[in-house]
Amino acid sequence: MGINEKVPQGFKFYGTHVGIKKRKKDFGLIVADDICSAAAVFTKNTFCGECIPIGKKHVENAELQAVVVTSGIANVATGLEGRENEYRILDKIAAKLAIEPKNILPSSTGVIGPQLPIKTIETFLETHSLDLDQDYETFAQAILTTDNRIKVRSLNVGDGKILGIVKGSGMIEPNMATMLAYILTDIKISKEEIYPMLKTAVDQSFNTISIDSDTSTSDTVAFLASGHTSASTKEIQAALNQICYELALDVVKDAEGATKTMFVTVKNAVSQEQAKKAGKSIINSPLVKTALFGHDPNWGRIAMALGKTEGLVFDQNKVEIFYGEYPIFSENHEEQQNIEPITTFIQENEDIYLTVDLHQGKENFQVIGCDLSYEYVKINSDYST
Amino acid sequence: MGINEKVPQGFKFYGTHVGIKKRKKDFGLIVADDICSAAAVFTKNTFCGECIPIGKKHVENAELQAVVVTSGIANVATGLEGRENEYRILDKIAAKLAIEPKNILPSSTGVIGPQLPIKTIETFLETHSLDLDQDYETFAQAILTTDNRIKVRSLNVGDGKILGIVKGSGMIEPNMATMLAYILTDIKISKEEIYPMLKTAVDQSFNTISIDSDTSTSDTVAFLASGHTSASTKEIQAALNQICYELALDVVKDAEGATKTMFVTVKNAVSQEQAKKAGKSIINSPLVKTALFGHDPNWGRIAMALGKTEGLVFDQNKVEIFYGEYPIFSENHEEQQNIEPITTFIQENEDIYLTVDLHQGKENFQVIGCDLSYEYVKINSDYST
Repeated sequence: MGINEKVPQGFKFYGTHVGIKKRKKDFGLIVADDICSAAAVFTKNTFCGECIPIGKKHVENAELQAVVVTSGIANVATGLEGRENEYRILDKIAAKLAIEPKNILPSSTGVIGPQLPIKTIETFLETHSLDLDQDYETFAQAILTTDNRIKVRSLNVGDGKILGIVKGSGMIEPNMATMLAYILTDIKISKEEIYPMLKTAVDQSFNTISIDSDTSTSDTVAFLASGHTSASTKEIQAALNQICYELALDVVKDAEGATKTMFVTVKNAVSQEQAKKAGKSIINSPLVKTALFGHDPNWGRIAMALGKTEGLVFDQNKVEIFYGEYPIFSENHEEQQNIEPITTFIQENEDIYLTVDLHQGKENFQVIGCDLSYEYVKINSDYST
Repeated sequence: MGINEKVPQGFKFYGTHVGIKKRKKDFGLIVADDICSAAAVFTKNTFCGECIPIGKKHVENAELQAVVVTSGIANVATGLEGRENEYRILDKIAAKLAIEPKNILPSSTGVIGPQLPIKTIETFLETHSLDLDQDYETFAQAILTTDNRIKVRSLNVGDGKILGIVKGSGMIEPNMATMLAYILTDIKISKEEIYPMLKTAVDQSFNTISIDSDTSTSDTVAFLASGHTSASTKEIQAALNQICYELALDVVKDAEGATKTMFVTVKNAVSQEQAKKAGKSIINSPLVKTALFGHDPNWGRIAMALGKTEGLVFDQNKVEIFYGEYPIFSENHEEQQNIEPITTFIQENEDIYLTVDLHQGKENFQVIGCDLSYEYVKINSDYST
């Protein structure tokens, strides 16, 4: 379907260059035609950006009408001046669009430390009209930093539509990411229902991915429902879960320098929480990640990473490790005959499925991560200079 | 002083190639002339090597007479066969040296998974005499894997001497390392005192370093006291602390691919434990480590890593960050005038001192880590192939 067909009723977009970045788009807006039911979840990083407390306050009453994103500078560790700058931007936009500042959710992503060039932004807003339209791609471009591509997903659900836009490609773990995600739907959702729905979807998606174990100071996932159409709670939850999962996967696929995506399922643990912790320990291990980059099915490092999981007790004699359907370690020995086919499989495929069976309980959990490449080091040793 | 002058009375060494590695030395022995007071601390990794339970049992009575190390294969995840192979090696050595197998501490380091070439090792031991002498350097060479150099430290203390030998250069955190350390002294230490002394020294040294947040399956630090000389408890504890600190620092300095050593002190935390956790979060952050590699004084990533420390509550408005004596972030703003001198400092120095002052409590803790370079990725994406 074309761009317009994907846009839920009641939402318009804007994306432009205001002068935070050198040349690329750095300012994006989503505006609804009326106040929406809304929910958002935010970074758990204690050292958080100035947008975060403002956003938390503004979404407290489960209402939002707009989202504004500045990219290139994160507005983190900027103190009172940084906070005031956000309010100045909100005031200008509110005045221009005739909406209330308290119904706008601000986000900012980029380098930590510098102040936003507030004069430049204000001058731009004073001298330009904000030509909102259905072109969400300009918005999706405007929110990017080290991302290689825009990441957008959409679905039809009931009579309505759901559209998700995400940015993020590093500093992704464990409770969301340098990640901003905006999910819009025209389906009517009550103010009571919208937060639990979003929380459910985020726990199964964004909270299961990890690129580098670093947690951003500005993570935000916001969900706005304009209420023009309808669908059953079950339908909308399923669609929201799917959109969030697809967006989360898009983020891992666009991970800084990554060449492989690794899906790690820890099976038969005593609890989902333990399975998740063990999976994260594996997917965040620099030695597992560099082995994956080297196409090396080094299950010893997987065993090591499993064993270092804090608080995880298991019997190493019962552990089995599989790449796809191939066992590589079981009954305390390496399945040597499988090393070659697995190595070939890793060489030839981007998506690598790893299963670790603890044979201990009944709970499973899947986490998603990626490899650690020269390119990751290059991108991140170069970033602010 | 020459080699012989550094060796505590009562110890001899041996190092050779038995055929685990292709060409390099892969078999080392330390033998005391009589049973020593002894203590050891081991990896906390649940998925541990076959040497670990044997070593724990053998040192339980605070007595050891010898240490044997095989390098090149870790003897981890090798099941019953792996365990039996260790006992076969101990039996052969015990018979040859006329000591008891239960007084030997075994260690193994290298690739996880494969079985030791036990026939080759046994044949070697049957056909060669073990020519023990005071040349600890051949032993120090025999225990290396990806290390670039042997790491040995010594001190005089009271009437006696203390000598420490360590290997390790990756998979180093948080409770020791792919790290084997042997500390020998001729000072008399009682069986009751020796373990607490070692634990105190290890907590202030090996447990404060991190190369890549991965924890080895075979870590061991053993301490043997032959009892030929004497010194006060205070003197020996101070010497042991210093030797352990120097050895730990040697490990970080030899870290896989590292170009810089970073000393992170978290000051004025509410507890030492919180200061340590915060320090480890900083020193293990891939984004902090790549910035260091890029000579980029990116304090924003330090703030991010501080903020993601699990369970750490602090007021971000009070945080100050220093490189050496230079503040780079205080009172919620970047100290721009210091960026250039700090960048120059990072470029020109190998040891980088970072201080994060939380202004919250009264406890300080220092941890030590290193940068993340292309070379780390290269070494570890190539390791088993």
